[in-house]
Amino acid sequence: MQNDGVTAQADTLCDIGFIGLGVMGSNLTMNLADHGYRVACFDLDQHKVDAILQKDADERHSDAAPRVEGCSSYTELLSKLKTPHLIILSVPAGDPVDHVCNHLIDAGIHADDIVVDTGNSLWTDSVTREEHYKGKFIFFSTAVSGGEVGARFGPSLMPSGNPYAWTRLEPVLTAIAAKVDPETGKPIESFTPGKPVTEGESCATYIGPVGAGHYVKMVHNGIEYADMQLICETYHMMREALHMSAAEIAAVFRQWNEGKLNSYLMEISAEVLEQMDPETNVPLVDVILDKAGQKGTGLWTAVSALQVGSPAQTITSAVFARSLSSLKDERMAASQTLSGPEALSLSDEEKLSVVNKLEQALYCSKICAYAQGFQLMAIAAKEHGWSLDFGEIAKIWRAGCIIRAVFLQSIAKAYENNEELSNLLMDPFFSDQIAQFQSDWRESIAKATLAGVPCPAMMSALSYYDSYRTAVLPANLLQGQRDYFGAHTYQRVDKPAGKKYHLNWSDPARPQVAIKK
Amino acid sequence: MQNDGVTAQADTLCDIGFIGLGVMGSNLTMNLADHGYRVACFDLDQHKVDAILQKDADERHSDAAPRVEGCSSYTELLSKLKTPHLIILSVPAGDPVDHVCNHLIDAGIHADDIVVDTGNSLWTDSVTREEHYKGKFIFFSTAVSGGEVGARFGPSLMPSGNPYAWTRLEPVLTAIAAKVDPETGKPIESFTPGKPVTEGESCATYIGPVGAGHYVKMVHNGIEYADMQLICETYHMMREALHMSAAEIAAVFRQWNEGKLNSYLMEISAEVLEQMDPETNVPLVDVILDKAGQKGTGLWTAVSALQVGSPAQTITSAVFARSLSSLKDERMAASQTLSGPEALSLSDEEKLSVVNKLEQALYCSKICAYAQGFQLMAIAAKEHGWSLDFGEIAKIWRAGCIIRAVFLQSIAKAYENNEELSNLLMDPFFSDQIAQFQSDWRESIAKATLAGVPCPAMMSALSYYDSYRTAVLPANLLQGQRDYFGAHTYQRVDKPAGKKYHLNWSDPARPQVAIKK
Repeated sequence: MQNDGVTAQADTLCDIGFIGLGVMGSNLTMNLADHGYRVACFDLDQHKVDAILQKDADERHSDAAPRVEGCSSYTELLSKLKTPHLIILSVPAGDPVDHVCNHLIDAGIHADDIVVDTGNSLWTDSVTREEHYKGKFIFFSTAVSGGEVGARFGPSLMPSGNPYAWTRLEPVLTAIAAKVDPETGKPIESFTPGKPVTEGESCATYIGPVGAGHYVKMVHNGIEYADMQLICETYHMMREALHMSAAEIAAVFRQWNEGKLNSYLMEISAEVLEQMDPETNVPLVDVILDKAGQKGTGLWTAVSALQVGSPAQTITSAVFARSLSSLKDERMAASQTLSGPEALSLSDEEKLSVVNKLEQALYCSKICAYAQGFQLMAIAAKEHGWSLDFGEIAKIWRAGCIIRAVFLQSIAKAYENNEELSNLLMDPFFSDQIAQFQSDWRESIAKATLAGVPCPAMMSALSYYDSYRTAVLPANLLQGQRDYFGAHTYQRVDKPAGKKYHLNWSDPARPQVAIKK
Repeated sequence: MQNDGVTAQADTLCDIGFIGLGVMGSNLTMNLADHGYRVACFDLDQHKVDAILQKDADERHSDAAPRVEGCSSYTELLSKLKTPHLIILSVPAGDPVDHVCNHLIDAGIHADDIVVDTGNSLWTDSVTREEHYKGKFIFFSTAVSGGEVGARFGPSLMPSGNPYAWTRLEPVLTAIAAKVDPETGKPIESFTPGKPVTEGESCATYIGPVGAGHYVKMVHNGIEYADMQLICETYHMMREALHMSAAEIAAVFRQWNEGKLNSYLMEISAEVLEQMDPETNVPLVDVILDKAGQKGTGLWTAVSALQVGSPAQTITSAVFARSLSSLKDERMAASQTLSGPEALSLSDEEKLSVVNKLEQALYCSKICAYAQGFQLMAIAAKEHGWSLDFGEIAKIWRAGCIIRAVFLQSIAKAYENNEELSNLLMDPFFSDQIAQFQSDWRESIAKATLAGVPCPAMMSALSYYDSYRTAVLPANLLQGQRDYFGAHTYQRVDKPAGKKYHLNWSDPARPQVAIKK
């Protein structure tokens, strides 16, 4: 075997090298194999290399040639590849990426070879790496969404970096990405090994300069945090204020999933709620501890929003909701001490009405969460000099990724109708939707407020909407306060923009001074 | 003059060197002079040096000796000081601090000399600097709150760093800081040059290792953002939903300022609302443009809260409210397109009732904002190995700083009664207060929700309260979702903490796997 590798003939050389054979890496490898690519694989753990060879043997026709080759070193991997080399990494974000890159340099990688990072890297690290490895090889990155199933049968891909590298990668990445029916906006799926989907629109599009793809993926995850939290809040309202069982709530989610809230997250929420615990005779959700974990991408999105000054408050409130959930011991103690309002007492008819309004509340809140995510990308793009195509971004999120939903077809249309759309809320379809459903939204939040059921994300979405549509916010008083105690100056509504004034508050006559610049 | 400086006798040497004579620096210098310190001053701008000499001449008795000496170089400054040198900087945060430090090294500063940074430095920069200048001189920092008036007549000071340096600085900083009547918790103030306050408790206390003081000051500013935003939201509600004039709202604020909401910010808000525009015949607030500025400390607080996982959502929502206000053009356009609910129609009696409830809403929200700030300090202190005395911190904020309020006396008491208090909300006084007033708080938010008046900070405060007092949050469903799509695992309520489980969702039998660690 090893000898074969070292003396490999050109016609048996592999198309792609793959490094890192964890769950994501091995699934991406099998996805590539299903699309006809011959892949040379390497992992520091030889067992993982053996496992992927076995997987290939199990899945391919017994008379077909192996589609995957194992390697036991970086050098061997390079020797088994066609040139210029194309190598894909699926290793943990951070130092391991550079560790592998440096080994590839030692193994003799060339300046025109391409290395693609598919990990959950911080976008600024990708920018640093492209520069750092210039002249050694071409560092490219593609963000991957869709978890393990997406990796195996079609993820949503957000590639960015050197445009030359993209021309080489485009056929590969568009092949392995998820596919969408362009008419309905729904995923075209196949979960059968060896029978990949080859029709439909591909969920891979070139995002822009290096870093842009991971930035967009980061915002995708921020939106995902908000979307999940909003679903959880409607669940919480039904459980706490309406005393509905997990099964009853699952039935409501199933019903919502037939309509405008149709989405992967809605669907799996229903499935989770229907799941019985294998150990006990109760719904699984009732034995799962309510301490939320997080891996950081939601937090990064919130931090970026703060830094570029984009009011992504619903995404941020979802991050804080996870932090707060993790203070379980404190909450247990506080629940014994801190009082709430009287419980609601509702007839069945009233309960049904609350549930129906909650559907609209979730929908309107969701529109605002997505509006915040797209607004953040727009503001960040301006800051970083990227020109992002928001219609294309919405399109590649219609399948393969966690937030996939028919809803994204409407977002894609909004940006196709108006490339200069300042905010998703200003699209005629979405502004009409909110106009139509806002009273239910407001009543749901008012109900939760009076019932003492927390709904931080939903509230932040409504206050986003109400702030955005307000011509005169109370920031005039705020600027007055700031000028009073810190001489921070203010602008005037009746004077040219940018002209600054200060009132000399400590002078009894309080003269106004125009600040010269 | 210069000759005098170079050959200065020991008995005419100055106690303190001061570098940076902007508004803050010159006021701090005059404050030091009022407390009997002889100060040698330097600024790159010779006019500022001349100005402080003139100020000293104007303010002192004509037969008294000058209290301030001017210098025209770093070398001259050092030559005019007693040894070991004590030098205070008031220069813009960032590079200028290091610029001055390096000049002092060139001028021959000694290893046992002390340099105190009083700027708005990022706390991590102070940590870096202490280490960087070790062996050259002792870098110490003290955060200063209170704006220009505070600097002149008594600021709130949050010093941190080398304990030896603190023993030398303590008499100086406790002298110039603001003073409080320990019984009432109210400031003892004098705004007469040459007649400083010398009685009462000083608003300067040693916070901890370098960086801790600036961190605490950063959180102070985050709380300040929340406090200001909350006041603005009550103003906005009165203006938009109740159609009250600036003067009417000012009268309400004056009344609130007599009670439990008594604070500097409440007081100046009333003053700002009462102020007529010198140019036109309308209230000044009505001609101030509603685009809020920000200098960054609120943003830093929010970022830190996200990073350490402390749910400071009200502080963060105040930062986002400023960002959103700055999108004035978009809001103007949106106000023409996006619909809101019908306006409220209220009798005078109903309006009065709404105003009275708003007072309680503001109060309860304020308690939550402060609870978040103290919680953030506690979580950050644990992370950084600081042991912060929250009672002392509340005490030094009772005077001199922007958030000074009688309210802080209650916070100080809460931490004095229980040093291990997990959250301000758990203090018996505060939990009783919220129990007493929460129905007004909830009704105010419900009213704003239905009326379409945005109140993001107030809503986030309520959802913080309701989340914190909830034993079972919907994060169980969230963990189910995360385990479903990403195999992120969950804990169980009926198994030991930390033990992780994964349900194999893609297996038709859906077996649960205990994760070995």
